[in-house]
Amino acid sequence: MKAAIFNGKGNVKLGERPDPKIQLQTDAIVRVVRSCVCGSDLWYYRGLSSHASGPIGHEFIGIVKEIGENVKNLEKGDFIISPFTFNDGSCPNCVRGWTGNCEHGGSFGNNGIDGGQGEFVRVPFADTTLVKVNGRDFSEEKLKSLLTLSDVLCTGYHAAVSANVTKGSTVVVVGDGAVGLCGVISSKRLGANRIIVMSRNPSRQRLAKEFGATDIIEERGPEAVKKVMEFTHGEGADATLECVGTYESMNAAFGSARVGSIVGSVGVPHGVEVPINNVIFKNVGLRGGIAPARHYIPELIDDVINGKINSGKVFDFQTDLNGIEEAYKVMDERKAIKSYIIVSDLQQ
Amino acid sequence: MKAAIFNGKGNVKLGERPDPKIQLQTDAIVRVVRSCVCGSDLWYYRGLSSHASGPIGHEFIGIVKEIGENVKNLEKGDFIISPFTFNDGSCPNCVRGWTGNCEHGGSFGNNGIDGGQGEFVRVPFADTTLVKVNGRDFSEEKLKSLLTLSDVLCTGYHAAVSANVTKGSTVVVVGDGAVGLCGVISSKRLGANRIIVMSRNPSRQRLAKEFGATDIIEERGPEAVKKVMEFTHGEGADATLECVGTYESMNAAFGSARVGSIVGSVGVPHGVEVPINNVIFKNVGLRGGIAPARHYIPELIDDVINGKINSGKVFDFQTDLNGIEEAYKVMDERKAIKSYIIVSDLQQ
Repeated sequence: MKAAIFNGKGNVKLGERPDPKIQLQTDAIVRVVRSCVCGSDLWYYRGLSSHASGPIGHEFIGIVKEIGENVKNLEKGDFIISPFTFNDGSCPNCVRGWTGNCEHGGSFGNNGIDGGQGEFVRVPFADTTLVKVNGRDFSEEKLKSLLTLSDVLCTGYHAAVSANVTKGSTVVVVGDGAVGLCGVISSKRLGANRIIVMSRNPSRQRLAKEFGATDIIEERGPEAVKKVMEFTHGEGADATLECVGTYESMNAAFGSARVGSIVGSVGVPHGVEVPINNVIFKNVGLRGGIAPARHYIPELIDDVINGKINSGKVFDFQTDLNGIEEAYKVMDERKAIKSYIIVSDLQQ
Repeated sequence: MKAAIFNGKGNVKLGERPDPKIQLQTDAIVRVVRSCVCGSDLWYYRGLSSHASGPIGHEFIGIVKEIGENVKNLEKGDFIISPFTFNDGSCPNCVRGWTGNCEHGGSFGNNGIDGGQGEFVRVPFADTTLVKVNGRDFSEEKLKSLLTLSDVLCTGYHAAVSANVTKGSTVVVVGDGAVGLCGVISSKRLGANRIIVMSRNPSRQRLAKEFGATDIIEERGPEAVKKVMEFTHGEGADATLECVGTYESMNAAFGSARVGSIVGSVGVPHGVEVPINNVIFKNVGLRGGIAPARHYIPELIDDVINGKINSGKVFDFQTDLNGIEEAYKVMDERKAIKSYIIVSDLQQ
């Protein structure tokens, strides 16, 4: 099969991989219909974190092509969403809803597991990992939004849930990438009254506003924090979403948070230091991490299907597997928020 | 009046200070009956943090000697507990219950405010700071426990509340100082089923067990974490209390926390770095900080008076103001958990 292959810093190419086969009777083989590139893929693409050479990508929706004998809840031909991590559904972490921390799980495109940016994927623990979508008659726009359930929407939602966004909250979102934008959608959904987004990119600002942002802050660092304080009578935000994962973003988030509130952080940390004095002397908490996407998908999917959530709008570059190099390049150069990859036909 | 005076590293002596006077009509002057030395006093005593030369101490109970014209809820002669911070009760932080973060507040023994380790204290915002105690007929043991409401019990309670200790929780307490021991009391009160304490000091172990600890871990660092995992089927604690504030204690706490749980941290941080990878890759949260003692006192005082909480047992050294040097010395040398200072007679 064809699949995106990582060959080292700045080098992603379409290559060949063996067609996946059922290895355990709890596996399913999925034909990938749509995939995409994640902001976290850029970390190894840019050489800022390590990643083995080989298959990559972890966000995909597709059609079940084959199932192992012990797969009970899925059938060949089912249209499914895969979370970016697979999980057994029965370990103590899964039972508590922390499916992204399954004791026997892992993520796609790592440790010999097929990546989502390819034609087929072997999915371990298929019954407890994949979520079946009812219906087939979806527009391309709807498919885009369904694909965001695989990771980015659930990750933005995890930031908002972790930060304890509730009805009437004033929220600050640090980061205008796809995760930050999904954090805006999620804050709105959880009842936030005011959503302040840090962004200096006009098209991202527009999208943020479309998703429910009420205020935009173009400043950065301490100047951005000053602006948050101006907007909030000097108190800071009731809930703060940190959706970048850098030293600067973490400080901007903690600086924006009001006494006693929580920073919900979902950025993969690079050189991050938690400003501990803000924790102790302002009682600002820190929560977040790998999103339990499998846990959130059932909660969010109806709103995606009924059109209340249009998270697919974060995709502003579209290609197919042959364009995989370009898909990474435009994101690396910040020419696109997120790249969408048409892999095969849903109806095929 | 006589008061403990800090004169630089390792140098605390009894000295003279002017008798405090009402400065604002919301002030009260309190005659201190009992005071004590806090673990956080040791930081500047040891030269590990800065503190202006002058009055010190922030934990005291006493008798109202004089009130300003605008003090409505207190009378001369009332027996009161003072939280270690004063607060106006009306700023947005106070209204939300974060009395230790009052926008117009401060702490005793800092910035020109009288310390608790002296004969008299001017208490700003007396109505909203001080808590009146009904009755006078208390044993010395009860007075000790009432004094812990000023800081250490509320701080231990804040660690447990921040860590989300609930009915049936398995709790790990890092730190066997007075705060850690009060964390044990608090975890028990909040319904913890199992309370694992890291301690290698036999007398502190005994007290921890008396307060409700079910298991003691004598190991430190990674070995201690290994032991926690043995005790918890490899999962870690449902709630972890970090009651020290060092790099090692923070790492031991995060290492002990199960996926999705919270580390409640109340140690004053010194050289602490939050292990961010544990936050992100284990979804372990961090909460805590300066305890809102004024907010907790009304919740805890009945249990102290009715004897369900015997937190006064953390005091294992007793003296009067003349023994202030020794009071610091025995704690500095870890010969005592916490020093109790008899300042004046309750019934006087």
